Amino acid sequence: MRGQELLTFVVYDIADDRVRFRIAEVCKDYGLDHIQYSVFSGPLDATRRSELFARLSDTLGRAEGRIIVLQLCEKDARAKREIVQIARSE
Amino acid sequence: MRGQELLTFVVYDIADDRVRFRIAEVCKDYGLDHIQYSVFSGPLDATRRSELFARLSDTLGRAEGRIIVLQLCEKDARAKREIVQIARSE
Repeated sequence: MRGQELLTFVVYDIADDRVRFRIAEVCKDYGLDHIQYSVFSGPLDATRRSELFARLSDTLGRAEGRIIVLQLCEKDARAKREIVQIARSE
Repeated sequence: MRGQELLTFVVYDIADDRVRFRIAEVCKDYGLDHIQYSVFSGPLDATRRSELFARLSDTLGRAEGRIIVLQLCEKDARAKREIVQIARSE
C-alpha cells in the first residue's frame, strides 16, 4: 500500500564524477526527474523516501559529498517558485 | 512587522561565473547560508521571500539559468535529511 506522496527534492554536491553519476542513477530508479545539474525531484511516499535516503547514503559510501533530501507538503509545493531560462539559439 | 519565518532554499544552476556570483551575493544579502555549491538556505518570512525571488529574477536578467525557491513548513523542515561528508586529510 502506498502512503501519501509528497514532492521530494534530492540536492547534492559531489565532486567525483563516478559517484555523482551513481547518485543520479539512484534518483532515476525512484522515478525522480532531473531538473537541475545536481537536483532531482518527484513524488514519493515516506517509505520510498526513506529507502531512497538509505540507497543514497550507501551509494555515497565514504566519498566526499553533501546530499539533502527534502519533502514538501502540498502547501509548500504550491508555493515553490521557479525561473527556467534556456539559452536562445543565435 | 515580521511574518512567520520558514526555512527557505534557493537552488540554482547557472553556467556564467559572474551571474552565478551575483546570485550568491543576493542570497547572502538575505542572510542565507551557503550550504552547497549552488544552494543557499535560511529562515525568511513570506515578504522577504518574495522580495528575494524578485531580486534573483532581476539579477539573472536574460542570462541562461534555472533558479528554484522553496519554503519548508516546520514539519517539512524537521523531516529534512542530510548527509555531509568532508574529505579526510591524508
